[in-house]
Order: sequence, then structure tokens, then C-alpha cells
Amino acid sequence: MSAERTAPDVVTTTSVAIVGAGPAGLMLAHRLGRSGVDCVNIDVRARAEIETTHRAGILESASAADLLDTGVSDRILRDGDEHAGVELRFGGRSHRIDFQDLVGASVWLYPQTDVFIDLADARDRDGGVVHFGVSGTVVDSVETDSPTVKFTDAAGARHEIRARYVVGADGSHSVCRKLVPEAQRSQFFREYPFAWFGLLVETPKNAPELIYAHSEHGFALVSQRSDTVQRLYFQCDPDESVDAWSDEQIWSTLHDRLSGDDGFELHTGPIIDKSVLRFRSFVQQPMRWGSMLLAGDAAHTVPPTGARGLNLALHDVRVLAPILVRALGAAGDSALDDYEPQALERVWRAQNFSFWMTQMLHNPPAATGFDLQRQLGELSNVVGTRAGRAYLAEQYTGWPSAGGPVG
Amino acid sequence: MSAERTAPDVVTTTSVAIVGAGPAGLMLAHRLGRSGVDCVNIDVRARAEIETTHRAGILESASAADLLDTGVSDRILRDGDEHAGVELRFGGRSHRIDFQDLVGASVWLYPQTDVFIDLADARDRDGGVVHFGVSGTVVDSVETDSPTVKFTDAAGARHEIRARYVVGADGSHSVCRKLVPEAQRSQFFREYPFAWFGLLVETPKNAPELIYAHSEHGFALVSQRSDTVQRLYFQCDPDESVDAWSDEQIWSTLHDRLSGDDGFELHTGPIIDKSVLRFRSFVQQPMRWGSMLLAGDAAHTVPPTGARGLNLALHDVRVLAPILVRALGAAGDSALDDYEPQALERVWRAQNFSFWMTQMLHNPPAATGFDLQRQLGELSNVVGTRAGRAYLAEQYTGWPSAGGPVG
Repeated sequence: MSAERTAPDVVTTTSVAIVGAGPAGLMLAHRLGRSGVDCVNIDVRARAEIETTHRAGILESASAADLLDTGVSDRILRDGDEHAGVELRFGGRSHRIDFQDLVGASVWLYPQTDVFIDLADARDRDGGVVHFGVSGTVVDSVETDSPTVKFTDAAGARHEIRARYVVGADGSHSVCRKLVPEAQRSQFFREYPFAWFGLLVETPKNAPELIYAHSEHGFALVSQRSDTVQRLYFQCDPDESVDAWSDEQIWSTLHDRLSGDDGFELHTGPIIDKSVLRFRSFVQQPMRWGSMLLAGDAAHTVPPTGARGLNLALHDVRVLAPILVRALGAAGDSALDDYEPQALERVWRAQNFSFWMTQMLHNPPAATGFDLQRQLGELSNVVGTRAGRAYLAEQYTGWPSAGGPVG
Repeated sequence: MSAERTAPDVVTTTSVAIVGAGPAGLMLAHRLGRSGVDCVNIDVRARAEIETTHRAGILESASAADLLDTGVSDRILRDGDEHAGVELRFGGRSHRIDFQDLVGASVWLYPQTDVFIDLADARDRDGGVVHFGVSGTVVDSVETDSPTVKFTDAAGARHEIRARYVVGADGSHSVCRKLVPEAQRSQFFREYPFAWFGLLVETPKNAPELIYAHSEHGFALVSQRSDTVQRLYFQCDPDESVDAWSDEQIWSTLHDRLSGDDGFELHTGPIIDKSVLRFRSFVQQPMRWGSMLLAGDAAHTVPPTGARGLNLALHDVRVLAPILVRALGAAGDSALDDYEPQALERVWRAQNFSFWMTQMLHNPPAATGFDLQRQLGELSNVVGTRAGRAYLAEQYTGWPSAGGPVG
């Protein structure tokens, strides 16, 4: 019988059902847990899959503080690297942007996989409920005050979560955001005619900090993972196949984009991971629909160039957690009205920063000589004065104050 | 007989023949004259035509100092207005960029027509030779050390100027720049899918400083000319005909782009001048060919949005004049090698600034919702922090130091 087949094996009642157990979803659960609010996370991916999917690597100070000050873990102090600047490389040499000197801030090299591991461990330690590897997720009744999330867990048991609120923290392929009716939602897009070819290589570090390189051959980024494994990227066609590239071609491409007058040369070594990262700019509004709220990539995706994606997701959650606490208390639904105004201004600033860094450093297929020379004029201008360097530094490190309207 | 018909009525020998008698050409003549270097200017336009062609209106401090410190005229102190800032207007209200506070600089509202009048009067006063309204200009032998400029003056007399150097300061439709052989020159272009509808109106001032306005309906700019005449602009189609616009349509368009939550309203009054200003970005390199050098719009044109064009031309001349003096002295041609490197970095910075201001404030025909929201994110970001405001201020006021390589 149909009714029998769909009856759940397990019914759970909780305050907040969180669809997604990446950094945004787990950090939200951690914050809610600290405030005594009950919640459950689910994720279609297996825990091991999330742990090994290489993503962003740069945390702004406020994001590092999220891990430290809320008691997730202090592992970042041992395994992370504090970077007080980055280098912009163009015209054959590197120009350092000294965050510490310019805006009194720094960032942390601490891969998203490590952020996830810390958050998932903290959930285990604190007795949080997280279902990884679920299937058949259905979110219902978000326009009422008793939304439900149904799914089948990794062991085959059918669940129904009855919650007061649902948070869609289910990433760039979010199903939750589709629950906002088409007529009621605005989706803002921008596609880019290039992607990043991402590599993990076994070599010593090439530099103490990240190097963002502009060249007539296209963009390249030198990053780090550890003393023995490094993260490198170069601009490629979005439809590029990783298998079409020999190691020789890869090293030669990186060489062309990074060589200069100063003798800088990458260490070469075994390539242990290759992937193509397509990217785009995306925002969906509203970020709330009835009893459902969207956070992180579910609501907005940025190109990776400005290292904003993970930091923006953690900012959403920093804003959202206390609002949910208030909404579950005396304030009720009206507390939710504060979420989008507090989150959205930073979203669009970050969209602009990511767009700007992308436009300034990449070489689009249709680029003219004017475009290339203008980029060099812009880079010259940015690194050439303290105001230019500070303008980049404060955006890269996450702005001096935590969002809020322009004063 | 052909030889007889082309024999000149007047042969003049001089050190520098300057093709063009706009601000760049006349300021160069003024500077050379102060150094005891002989020169002659010619221009196809009549003096009265240049005096009444409305162009730029903003001088950076260094440009104002060019007039004052080199003894052209101190009329700017009486008839000009020092502006210590501008306003960026978006989202229904204005945000001031305080140049004085941010970068210790200001700009002067002093129309290009007044700059021209002062320079032309100074040439008269100092006994400089300027031929306005010439025709049939032919520049020859620039690849030798005895270039010539032939033309017919306004009275019909045929002239030949025999010079050591020729400077092409003949504006955006320069004939001189075409003397660099096609195979040897690079031309960098960018066209824009919009133009400015420019107005002179008889009303009191609308504001003490310029207002650059972003709106979903397109860009508008509120500027001033005097206590009784104002300069207004709004973004329009490049093929717009001024006669197709009624006064009602013009005022209604300006109202839509400038109204807001703060009750700001333009004064209305008689419209005494209407024109469409098409604009584009353009650079030609090299800026020197043999015995010929290019300065100002002849070498580079910028969109008017950043008020850079006239200032950039005067910067070229500030660099070029002492180089010509050295070249005519012991240094010889080798002195000319310094010109392009000293001029060009500022050219591309100014190209980028003009491009940036244009992109941030205009609404291109193909703009998406993403583009509009990103612009608002960018504007929010620029006005929202001191670094953002300073980054704009130092570009608008002409950079802290006079060009030179990035240090």
C-alpha cells in the first residue's frame, strides 16, 4: 500500500531541520547547540566524500574566530597557517599586499576539508545528530509553521523530521531554494567563459603566501596545503577535460603564467589530484520563504577568485543563528525579518569583490589588447598606492565590521 | 605650374611645430616659451569655435597649478570653484567622497573653455605664434630631423614650418597619429553602448559639488558652470538626436535618475544648449615616431566619467616640455626616450579609472539584474569604508605623485 510504503520508520521532532552538513550547515548546528536549540542535519553526501572534496582554503579572521571562539576546535592554531598578506603578480614580478600593515587583519590558510572535519567532530563530541549519505530528501510545508523533512538514511531507514524551521544550507545545487515559488523569487546569474584547473602536487612550498598571477596567457594561483603538498590553479576552458592534459603541458602552462624577471620558478613534483572547477556568480532572493531560510551557497555562489565563498557562508550563519534563537523565543517569526537585510549587503559586496578580482586577473577568450593593458593599469593602480592596497586588503580579509548597512 | 602652386607664401623656422591649439598644444607652447624654446601652434578650428565648445569642467590640483605656477593666469582663483569632494548618489541618497579629508587634495570646477581662453590670451600676451582656422595641413618628414608642417592660414596664405620636432596635440581625430606607420603602431579601443546627453541650463546651482548618480534608469551627472548656468548630463543612446527630446522628456528623465528618499530635486529652467557626447576608450602606442611626439587626446581618449581627459593631456605636456628642452640641448634625440615611459603608466591608470567609473555608474542596454545589484554592491563598498573612498578620491584627484613607475 502506498501509505504504508511512505510511512516513516523514524519520526523526529526538533526545532530546526538543517538540510546540508557542509561548513554552513554544521556551523549553524554548532551555534544553535550552544544556545540550547535542538536541531538535526542531513546531507546527501557521505562524510568521507565531503572530507576529501578539495574546496576553498582561506579563512578570514572572523571565520577562524568562529572555530576558536565558539569552541569548535583550536586545531587551526596548530595545522593552519596565518597569512598576513598575498602577492599580486604581473608584468614579471610580484607585489605584496600587506594585510597586517594596511588593515590590521590577516587570513588563515586552513582548507575547507579541515573546517568540515573539525565541525563534524564537534557535532559528534557534543551529541549532535547528523545524517550523512541520505537519499530521497523531500522538504514540505515550508509555508506553514510545521515544515517537515523526509529522507532515507544511509542504512535504508525512512525518516521524517518535524521542525519549527528549516534551513537550506544545501550548497550550490540546493533543492531548498527551489521551494521559493518561481513567481516569488529573483535569481541573479553571471557565467564566466573560463574555469580553474585545480591541482594538488607533492612539492615543498613555493611561497609563504598566496600568489595571484595575471599574465597575457591567463590567470594562475599558487597556494599551499602543507609543507609537502601544494595547491595550484590555472585558468582553463570551462569544458576542459583533466585527462587531456599531460604533466608536461600542465607544468609548462604554469611556467608561462608565473615566470618573470625575478627568477621565480615553481617546484615541480608528482601531481596527485586534478579537477576542473567551473564557476559562476549567483544570488537568489529572498533568503527566507515562510519557515525556511537559505544560507551559504544555497543562496549565493561566488567565483573562487576572492576567497569569499566559505567566509560568506559562515557570515550568513553568524547572522542567522541568533535570529533563529530569537524566533524560537518570544519574538516569533518577526525576528526572521532581520536576516536578509543583515546578510544581503555583504553578499553583494562579496559578489562584487569576487567579480572584480576575477575580471582584473583573468584573460577572457574575447579579450582585446585594450582589456589586457587596462588590467595592467588597474593592477598598477591597486598596488601602487596605500589606498589601492587597502581597498583590496579590506575586501579580501572580510571588511572591518561585520556587515550592516553603509553608515 | 605645379611647383609654383605649392610653393609656400611664408616659410617659418622654429624648434617645435605644434599641431593643435587646444589646452594641450597651448600649454606645451606656454611651457616651451618659458624655457626660451621657439614654437608655433596651428589648429583647424577657429578660436571662437574652441572657446564655445563645451567640454570637461574639472581640473585636478596639478592642472590648476599648471595655470597658476607657470604664470598662465590666476583667473581660476576668481572664476573657478574649488571642490573638496564629489557625491556618489545611489539607492535614493547621496554619499560624499571628501577628497580633502581622504587624500588632502581637491579639484577645481573650471571649464575647459576657460582654460583655453586663458592659454590663448597668455600666448597673445607672450608673443606666441598661433594660427587658428588653418586648412590643408600636411605634416612631412617626421622620420628625419627636419620635419615640416604645411598649411593654409585663415587668410589664405600658404605656410611651411620647418621644425626640429613636431608635436601632435591635435585631439581625438588626430591626423598626426596616422603618421606612425600602421605596421609599427598599436591602437587599443573600447566602444561603449551609450553616450551622454549634455545640457546647459539657466538655473541656480543644484548642489555645491558634482553629483554622480547611479539608477536603474541609467546614469546622470549634476555639474555646475556658474551661479546662473548649470551643466547636466544623462546617459543616452549613442545615436540619440538632441532634437528628438522635448524639454519635458529631458526634465522627466533627469528626475527619474536623481530623485530619492532625501527629497532632492533639480531646479528647472531654460535649456540653452543640448548635445550628445559619444565616448570611447582609445590609446595609440608608441607616443613618439621619429621627430614627432603625440600628446593628449591625439594619443589617448578616455570616457568623460572620471574627468581624466583634460588632466591627462596636461600631464603629458608636463612630462613632455622638459624632455623637449633637453632634446633641443645637449641630450639630443635620446632625451625623447623618456617620454612614453613617464607618460604611459598614468595613461593606463587613467584609462582604467575612466573605465571603472563608467562601468560602475552606467546601465548598459544588456545589463542583467546581476549587473545592477553588483553595481550597488560596489558602490556600497566604495562609499562604505575609508579605503574605498580614498581609492576613488586619489584617482579622481590625480594620484598623489606625478606618475612614474610603481614603487
